[in-house]
Amino acid sequence: MIRSIEESPLYAIINPKSIAFFGASNNFLRMGSMMLSSVQALGYEGKIYPVHQTEKIVRGHQAYTSVLDLPETPDLALIVLPTDIVCQTLEDCGKKGIRHAIVVSGGFREAGPDGSERQKKLESIAKRYGIRFLGPNCLGIANPYLKLNPTTITAEGEPGFVGLASQSGSFITQMFNYLHRHGMGFSAAVSVGNEASIDIVDCLEYLGACPRTKVITLYIEGITRGRKFVETAKAITPHKPIVALYVGGSEAGRHAGRSHTGSMSCPNEIYDGIFRQCGILRAQTLTEMFDYALALGTLPRPQGHRVIIQTHSGGPGATAADACGRAGLTLPALSAETVEKLKPLIPKTASTANPLDLTYSLNSTENFFNIPDILLGEINADILLAYLLSPGIFVDRVMRELGVPEETIPAEREKMMAQHADHFVSLKDLHPDKAIVGFTYRSLQEQMVRSLLDRGIPVYQDPERAARAVAAVLRYYESRDVMKKGRSKAA
Amino acid sequence: MIRSIEESPLYAIINPKSIAFFGASNNFLRMGSMMLSSVQALGYEGKIYPVHQTEKIVRGHQAYTSVLDLPETPDLALIVLPTDIVCQTLEDCGKKGIRHAIVVSGGFREAGPDGSERQKKLESIAKRYGIRFLGPNCLGIANPYLKLNPTTITAEGEPGFVGLASQSGSFITQMFNYLHRHGMGFSAAVSVGNEASIDIVDCLEYLGACPRTKVITLYIEGITRGRKFVETAKAITPHKPIVALYVGGSEAGRHAGRSHTGSMSCPNEIYDGIFRQCGILRAQTLTEMFDYALALGTLPRPQGHRVIIQTHSGGPGATAADACGRAGLTLPALSAETVEKLKPLIPKTASTANPLDLTYSLNSTENFFNIPDILLGEINADILLAYLLSPGIFVDRVMRELGVPEETIPAEREKMMAQHADHFVSLKDLHPDKAIVGFTYRSLQEQMVRSLLDRGIPVYQDPERAARAVAAVLRYYESRDVMKKGRSKAA
Repeated sequence: MIRSIEESPLYAIINPKSIAFFGASNNFLRMGSMMLSSVQALGYEGKIYPVHQTEKIVRGHQAYTSVLDLPETPDLALIVLPTDIVCQTLEDCGKKGIRHAIVVSGGFREAGPDGSERQKKLESIAKRYGIRFLGPNCLGIANPYLKLNPTTITAEGEPGFVGLASQSGSFITQMFNYLHRHGMGFSAAVSVGNEASIDIVDCLEYLGACPRTKVITLYIEGITRGRKFVETAKAITPHKPIVALYVGGSEAGRHAGRSHTGSMSCPNEIYDGIFRQCGILRAQTLTEMFDYALALGTLPRPQGHRVIIQTHSGGPGATAADACGRAGLTLPALSAETVEKLKPLIPKTASTANPLDLTYSLNSTENFFNIPDILLGEINADILLAYLLSPGIFVDRVMRELGVPEETIPAEREKMMAQHADHFVSLKDLHPDKAIVGFTYRSLQEQMVRSLLDRGIPVYQDPERAARAVAAVLRYYESRDVMKKGRSKAA
Repeated sequence: MIRSIEESPLYAIINPKSIAFFGASNNFLRMGSMMLSSVQALGYEGKIYPVHQTEKIVRGHQAYTSVLDLPETPDLALIVLPTDIVCQTLEDCGKKGIRHAIVVSGGFREAGPDGSERQKKLESIAKRYGIRFLGPNCLGIANPYLKLNPTTITAEGEPGFVGLASQSGSFITQMFNYLHRHGMGFSAAVSVGNEASIDIVDCLEYLGACPRTKVITLYIEGITRGRKFVETAKAITPHKPIVALYVGGSEAGRHAGRSHTGSMSCPNEIYDGIFRQCGILRAQTLTEMFDYALALGTLPRPQGHRVIIQTHSGGPGATAADACGRAGLTLPALSAETVEKLKPLIPKTASTANPLDLTYSLNSTENFFNIPDILLGEINADILLAYLLSPGIFVDRVMRELGVPEETIPAEREKMMAQHADHFVSLKDLHPDKAIVGFTYRSLQEQMVRSLLDRGIPVYQDPERAARAVAAVLRYYESRDVMKKGRSKAA
């Protein structure tokens, strides 16, 4: 196991100071050009050396006819060329002294017997020169902290805590938007393609050591180095959670994986066993994988399974209660002390059972600070699940009716929502050992919820997703305890 | 069973030509005022008669001191008054000849022994005058076709095909936004509250006969008239699907339901049995209920379980294949004839297995017409599941790079996306017996997907949700066949 990311063959690939770019040109419709354009759009500050046979300037950068002409030996070669010139290009890179590459080009193992031969040749060139490379047939990497995104789609949102190693390039490049909308961002993301030189186990090792990665996510169609995977995962899960989406278990998924990356897969039961052994949480869908990641990356360890649901609507409250029950969470009754503290703040129609159903708000400010503050102080509970019907939808109407001038309403509403969000977020510091989670049926992009997401309060589109994510967090820590106990017994 | 909605006690409540409004005033902060404001916002064209002791004009409408003074007998009384004057008000309505009411006020059975007594009194008044009423403790109804929304939140989106009968008012008033974002709208929605006079069975009967309702959805905490419910549902499911969300089955859900509407509930197994017997599809979450409704309301009956997945990204394709496998759908191989037809249209890197992985687009127009048209012509398949990565995100970049003037880009992109959507939607008419479903990880509000949703192509945020919804459609028709067979045997 590596102790720091610098020891990983991926270090120079994910954190290059300079890149030789093969396949970018001034014709934007080429994939390489799009990738270079994405790099430029995010503002990468390292050196870029396009290599192009005829163009002198490529997208504003001085270009070179041959990699051998470069004024320095770059950290990384990024190769997006027609299949039949990839091997020669890698050889030239080797001659120049380049020791790390990303081979985006396809047409190798995934393309049948001829492709397999070609891949072997590529591997032997790499060995000869001591080159470690990602791919072929991959989309490379994204490192938002380095403002480096050499993928086909421009990045969105802020860097975050989710590390992803993926046997699909799409789940790197097409997920910026998804993660941002759901309150997350990548710490680093790697598409492994055919895994000729660097495989998903190497990625796991890197992400395990990466200080910016709080949660590791894996998209798996099939693992080759099974034993090493288990050993690596077992070393990581005691200090960092891993969530895996494995799609090769069903007949349909297996077929699809084979034609996609040529990977071999095993029945679900085998992977379930492997994941359990390593303390990896398995997700059934991409949605679930990132739902779990959000909770794992933002919540403290809950001290138990006991949830209080705060709602002002009976149906969403009952639905959330049902979801919690299904997920193995319990709903304790509020203590007499808590009820006593709540009374002055809640309408007389409110129910002080759990869910606490406020029915309506005497003062919406209370919903975002005083009331949840009391609930988080409840000694019999570990988790607060709050139904967040954005009060913004009422505020506009009320202000309009009260004669607030139309042009000042948006600013007033924004101010009020920002205050609510500030108050709610401040509860995290006041109750550092309790988990605070929200759910809404409205868009996550409405101001108050968006602001909570941006500041590390997980909010889900359905109470079921919230409850399952919280249950996954509990499962992670429980399995970690068991693994640590096993280890100390063995020692 | 009723044959037309006019026979239902709900007819005048959902389709009133005139309403006596109790509890609205010029003080907007009262719930009744908010409800009247919502009615005005949507543009209801019937007569509104506010009844108020002191105000002469209420929100622009002439008000009356007593209901007895009204110039006509309105179809409906809507009562949002303090608990202790509700009975007297209903009595006055009875004297005036009003025969239908919505009692929004709470403080009845759900509020303990005193409340139960009060509810009995309300019921006896109603019986004496032959009044049928919704509630108490409900949010009433929404009938978007009549531009009538007397709930606390303003309506959004267009009227649609989803009928909802709900033991939670929130799921009426708070779902306009949700349904609109997901490509649906209400045909009619009813919140039943304490069900003193009209219960969820009456609603089911109404929605079964309602020609605008293509799918019935039910939010259930507990059913009282079990036998009548089964009988009514059994009469409806042979011609109209019903999807039910029942939350009273878990310990936590049961407790929550009891304190919400005071309803009694039974273990999950009993409801599962009832639903199965009636051909009702059970959903575990609100998300799932409306996911099923979308597919049931838009898709033709698929002739079988065979899906072709169209994708240009391997990972999303494999994930969709895995989800289909889990949902009981199968992925047939494409016939030689289909592959032959596809060849000229797809890149040579594409995989003609199923999923059909295009890898990239030679011409994005083909993805939205010629390619799916060929796939829908495949004799071995019944369903097309298409991964919709909005091409809009590439179009802007390409046009900018090609030097299209910045200010004309949005309009050009909009035109192109509208054309893609037109083409894709036209496939429905060309292949009326095939089911066309989409999925995306991007927002449903991006132009092309939004346009598909608006025109009856169901698009989901995850292939799992798409696959499960399609499987629910198949289950509905299969159970219907079984029920019809059973009936013809019995006859």
